[in-house]
Amino acid sequence: MIKRIEKTKIMHRVVVNNGTAYLGGIIADDVSVGMGGQVTQICGKLDQVLAMAGSDKTKLLSAQLFITDMSLKNEMNDAWLAWLDGNDLPARATIGVADLGAPEIKIEVVVTAAV
Amino acid sequence: MIKRIEKTKIMHRVVVNNGTAYLGGIIADDVSVGMGGQVTQICGKLDQVLAMAGSDKTKLLSAQLFITDMSLKNEMNDAWLAWLDGNDLPARATIGVADLGAPEIKIEVVVTAAV
Amino acid sequence: MIKRIEKTKIMHRVVVNNGTAYLGGIIADDVSVGMGGQVTQICGKLDQVLAMAGSDKTKLLSAQLFITDMSLKNEMNDAWLAWLDGNDLPARATIGVADLGAPEIKIEVVVTAAV
Repeated sequence: MIKRIEKTKIMHRVVVNNGTAYLGGIIADDVSVGMGGQVTQICGKLDQVLAMAGSDKTKLLSAQLFITDMSLKNEMNDAWLAWLDGNDLPARATIGVADLGAPEIKIEVVVTAAV
Repeated sequence: MIKRIEKTKIMHRVVVNNGTAYLGGIIADDVSVGMGGQVTQICGKLDQVLAMAGSDKTKLLSAQLFITDMSLKNEMNDAWLAWLDGNDLPARATIGVADLGAPEIKIEVVVTAAV
Repeated sequence: MIKRIEKTKIMHRVVVNNGTAYLGGIIADDVSVGMGGQVTQICGKLDQVLAMAGSDKTKLLSAQLFITDMSLKNEMNDAWLAWLDGNDLPARATIGVADLGAPEIKIEVVVTAAV
């Protein structure tokens, strides 16, 4: 049975089916800060959404990190890896894209996780 | 067992495994129309491909909407949400990308669904 | 149980759960060559990573091909299709993105596969 959690105007923040959680894209709430700060906020939101789905950051399967400035990749990595235990790192792709909705938005993260 | 459906020159339009359908990217057939019209065409094609996989729009899990002009996001949302029942909205990410193959192509949609 | 394989500094190259393998993004090792050569290298690396996960190219479910120059799509297709048996083609999306980390990097590939 499909389980949908926390509906917004445009999506559910997470949909669970067959033991897998599919999360919607997450951006930072406060995008006045730089890449590192945005990643840290996103990781906090991931903790919350994963918990709602009965999962957590040790169960991440895949992550897509869409960023608008590839020169900030090291800063992104530092904040991302500070959040995760090295033993649990998900498969990952970092893609440099054109626009995430506003110039201040440096990164949007999309993950799947086991439940 | 992996089930592959409707082969084109470059892909299968949908591949089903273990209760999950993975759809190939869908663009509108007639890209002379604007964002709203393209989304509506894509939704019609999604209905067809989902049906071939034994699924339908009430079983969408995740959706990635790649668009080339983020200023058209509201128009995109209107057409997308007109197609879906609010109770069944999938997890979603909208990513502003550089190029979808021709300047007229405003959007390409990639979804997964439960079968 | 989640199975994670070949850890790098930033990710696991492949994570397997519930019969599905999620691969991290793959780029060519030698990006001094053009699109076709990069795709061929990536396909060789996919063979290796899929094997580590207990899968192979006949079990691909989905593929996302992120490319920085859409005018090279035909060259990409030729190399991609030369690698795959036509009967096993995965669902696919090709997305033109802004930046994959260096100007020479023409393509990054993200796939899922059945195990």
